[in-house]
Amino acid sequence: MPPYAEPVGGSSIAVAALRDWTQALATAVGTPSDIAADVAEILVSADCRGIASHGTARLPNYVALIDGAVMDAAARPVVEHEFGGVARIDARNGWGHHAGRIAVDHAIERARQFGVSLAVVRNSNHYGIAGWYALRAASVGMIGLSLTNSSPLVAPTRALHPLLGTNPIAMAAPAGQYGTFCLDMATSTVPRGRIEVASRRGETLPVGWAIGPDGRPATTPEAALAGALLPLGGLEETAGYKGYGLALVVDILTGVLAGAAFGPNVIGLFSTQAASDLGHAVWVIDLESLGGAGAFAQRLEGYLDRLTSAETVPGAPGRVLVPGEPEADAERRSLARGVVLDRQHHGSLVDLGARVGVPFPPTEAIHA
Amino acid sequence: MPPYAEPVGGSSIAVAALRDWTQALATAVGTPSDIAADVAEILVSADCRGIASHGTARLPNYVALIDGAVMDAAARPVVEHEFGGVARIDARNGWGHHAGRIAVDHAIERARQFGVSLAVVRNSNHYGIAGWYALRAASVGMIGLSLTNSSPLVAPTRALHPLLGTNPIAMAAPAGQYGTFCLDMATSTVPRGRIEVASRRGETLPVGWAIGPDGRPATTPEAALAGALLPLGGLEETAGYKGYGLALVVDILTGVLAGAAFGPNVIGLFSTQAASDLGHAVWVIDLESLGGAGAFAQRLEGYLDRLTSAETVPGAPGRVLVPGEPEADAERRSLARGVVLDRQHHGSLVDLGARVGVPFPPTEAIHA
Repeated sequence: MPPYAEPVGGSSIAVAALRDWTQALATAVGTPSDIAADVAEILVSADCRGIASHGTARLPNYVALIDGAVMDAAARPVVEHEFGGVARIDARNGWGHHAGRIAVDHAIERARQFGVSLAVVRNSNHYGIAGWYALRAASVGMIGLSLTNSSPLVAPTRALHPLLGTNPIAMAAPAGQYGTFCLDMATSTVPRGRIEVASRRGETLPVGWAIGPDGRPATTPEAALAGALLPLGGLEETAGYKGYGLALVVDILTGVLAGAAFGPNVIGLFSTQAASDLGHAVWVIDLESLGGAGAFAQRLEGYLDRLTSAETVPGAPGRVLVPGEPEADAERRSLARGVVLDRQHHGSLVDLGARVGVPFPPTEAIHA
Repeated sequence: MPPYAEPVGGSSIAVAALRDWTQALATAVGTPSDIAADVAEILVSADCRGIASHGTARLPNYVALIDGAVMDAAARPVVEHEFGGVARIDARNGWGHHAGRIAVDHAIERARQFGVSLAVVRNSNHYGIAGWYALRAASVGMIGLSLTNSSPLVAPTRALHPLLGTNPIAMAAPAGQYGTFCLDMATSTVPRGRIEVASRRGETLPVGWAIGPDGRPATTPEAALAGALLPLGGLEETAGYKGYGLALVVDILTGVLAGAAFGPNVIGLFSTQAASDLGHAVWVIDLESLGGAGAFAQRLEGYLDRLTSAETVPGAPGRVLVPGEPEADAERRSLARGVVLDRQHHGSLVDLGARVGVPFPPTEAIHA
């Protein structure tokens, strides 16, 4: 349930056209075409699901890393160590999306053999939405969990400065008539992009989103952007230490476990100073080993029926939601009507395409 | 970092004496002695770690379930299904602590063979602190994750009534000079016991802890106790839907996955109306399969050095903490000075012992 709204006054492009262009663009900057196909699939999936912050809008950043020789567009991940259901993959500083796809496919394969599996990835880059990898496992009747660390934006409880990433947790599972259950959440209260939206809208911030550079709760976007995000739960009195603990657990299961960078040492997508050396982890459970996906999905569907039909609090904006529902709705809309790009996003892709020699395809203006 | 303070004006008892008495008491109500030893070990561990709400203070509730033939003190769990690293255990409505101990030991054994393992438990009862099972895996150089569902106390985002348990997540890992990292957290902002403490102290509540029976934020403990706890994150505007999603993920990986009860159908420790049919899950990663526990712990120690030496916000009550530190400190104090019981807790154990014919041992009065 991310606080994103569809842009007004942008333009739309068919999903397949955006995917083809993204693949062509990645290829043009030196990415082998099979790797470029993964990149396009996963970035465009984020756009389709309404998570524009993790989709094609980031292409100029990835290309800057490639142009600066900070990331290797042609690198092929290697499985450097395997034991039973466990694998460690060296992404060799290539595209995180491709490394993540290799990791989840490896984990799916091993889960078939051993019931449960874990693939960790080191030496990687920003892999987009964590949910995609979990959804891939769910699409073959398994439970998928996907974790990644990221560059420091969040202050641990009591700390003045950001030392942890927004380190997301994603979990997906087959859910019968609800399609796929998919929780995909940053372990901060809100992502940094939400503060930027508040800044553009001139909003003040609720206590619990961020602290200012003085360490006090930030009530303006400007203070928050100069300070640090707060972990889920916010301040100490509202149990922000739990969100801090979760962010740390994600980093331990990715950066620390995989032997990648972690905590304050992670370099982000927006810096060309050095390679990110991100860590990811993908966990898969084969439901066949536990009574079958069909029976599981039937139980989960009954559970979700109870939740979505529950009596609501006064003033609720709607019924109780299932994690992943708003994103699945956005995906259906995107497939039917095309992906909606706001003016800035659209302009940046047009510029990038012109620069690299892969012109961005025509779009249709949206009349709000 | 649970908001518990050591009781003032209670009495203390040596750890071994409390454990022996607990084992004798469980045996006297029909528990085989090896099972009683697990129960005593895990309940007293909670007391030692300062989590009195999950320790021997609950013995009168367990005994009521046994007396009412709602729980079977003599039941022996069976591994009813196994495949590779995965096992499903039927606790046969016996002690949750014993079933959890069997599950984690099974998972440790399978993690040695397959690198990663998962044991789920159905038909179980309240298993005490989730952290104990994770710590057991960490004590043999592995990473342990332990999850359980529980009876409904938490309202999903937008819902008026409690439909989810406080469904805890625990994760433990070896951490070098920091001993063991152990996050053990309910997925609600606070546990119900914290609201009861606020009631005794006459405190008002921060927004984000609970809602009243009218569905509005509860500002008094009385409203909260008549209403519902809120998930971690609190209200929708401070991302309570993430805590709701986490609570649901825990229930899916325990109740739904194991084929136990889930959501509003779970019957709690405080009701003798029917068996709880709780679900647990224990996940273990053998660090030997990923470069060894020593190298892992060294990396984690370096990380925790960075966090604990970070500059703090003005007015912080101390340095940045490591999850599990306050509990480990309490454990050291308990081992040195005995477990401190408050008057009510002590009185209830004396009464229970007298009733069952296992007199509670002498204690030392604490002079505050």
